Amino acid sequence: MNNYEVTERNKLKRVPKRAHYDKETVYQILDAAFVCHVSFVVEGQPFLIPTAYGREGDTIYLHGATKSRMLVNLEKGIPVCVAVTHLDGIVVARSAFHSSINYRSVVVFGKAKLVSEDQKNHALEVITNNIIGNRWEEARPPYEKELKGTSVLAIEIESASAKIRVGGPVDEKEDYDLDIWAGVIPLQMTAGEPVADDLLRAEIPIPSSARNFTY
Amino acid sequence: MNNYEVTERNKLKRVPKRAHYDKETVYQILDAAFVCHVSFVVEGQPFLIPTAYGREGDTIYLHGATKSRMLVNLEKGIPVCVAVTHLDGIVVARSAFHSSINYRSVVVFGKAKLVSEDQKNHALEVITNNIIGNRWEEARPPYEKELKGTSVLAIEIESASAKIRVGGPVDEKEDYDLDIWAGVIPLQMTAGEPVADDLLRAEIPIPSSARNFTY
Repeated sequence: MNNYEVTERNKLKRVPKRAHYDKETVYQILDAAFVCHVSFVVEGQPFLIPTAYGREGDTIYLHGATKSRMLVNLEKGIPVCVAVTHLDGIVVARSAFHSSINYRSVVVFGKAKLVSEDQKNHALEVITNNIIGNRWEEARPPYEKELKGTSVLAIEIESASAKIRVGGPVDEKEDYDLDIWAGVIPLQMTAGEPVADDLLRAEIPIPSSARNFTY
Repeated sequence: MNNYEVTERNKLKRVPKRAHYDKETVYQILDAAFVCHVSFVVEGQPFLIPTAYGREGDTIYLHGATKSRMLVNLEKGIPVCVAVTHLDGIVVARSAFHSSINYRSVVVFGKAKLVSEDQKNHALEVITNNIIGNRWEEARPPYEKELKGTSVLAIEIESASAKIRVGGPVDEKEDYDLDIWAGVIPLQMTAGEPVADDLLRAEIPIPSSARNFTY
């Protein structure tokens, strides 16, 4: 199955031509970011938390301190919604009404469960290497006590959708005669030069993982 | 009152030194972005939608098509949680465990209500000018029929918190002797050269709002 089933929960109701339900598109958008927003419900109140993640197959891994609100609630297996959004540009139309945003976004539905002790190390590797490729291999591995103080959650993707807008403005026919500029302002998350820690010994070089990092 | 009251709902449980409850900090983080994630609950299921917004005082304005899932549900006045997150850098520690992310985030709690017909135009101005300063003044104003097809929601901020991490890695004492690079990879949303619409007449110049746009 290379597509997520389209149900009432994940179906995009607005601008259906921007909707994608294939796993390849969903995975690409998820793998191009490393911070998601996680939503869950406690006594009818929605909460929202930005957090780092990594994906492997249809599993999204999150980690956090054992007593955090997110962990304490999510480990109960309550429904979770996860969103990842990339901003690609501002679509500047001649009319305010047709102005828009170019973006790629994914919304995932599922439930979380605690990752077992013997799978924790692997899950943290997936998260770490999703942030910076190969960092897990460079960094000092976790001590037992560090693993004990960290909870890792696995969210199995039950349902998902992607939404993508690309291209320039689409204005009303009569507006093309107006003397108003229209176009796109491209946006991109850009990495600057890595800044060494003040306490780093001068002879330690920047690894290629950091030097060549691109978002 | 220049601070949001700290209650069970908005209190940050983890790393309290990163928490801010003053309105100035919350407003600054909100005003530096224009896409938020909005979370709401339908029959126990959390939904999450990325959408453009604008802030005025303690009000966050969102807009959407009248029949969108977000609008249909939020206009009932159900509890809403809104988050805005800026990624400022990757904190590369010597250990995987102490690696982190520099960020500024805000979480807002409130309820949405429909903006009345005579306030819609103003709310759309706030949203538009939050995306690109002064664009409302440059663009063709909405027609009556465009306003009719758009619903605008006002979320009054009942409660909010900001969370900020800055600075380099903080490693375990013994790890400073390791031959492992550590530092920060700065991240910033960057705007590229504006790209004119294919159908734009050549004599129309790029306005300073687009030419000098910075995220």
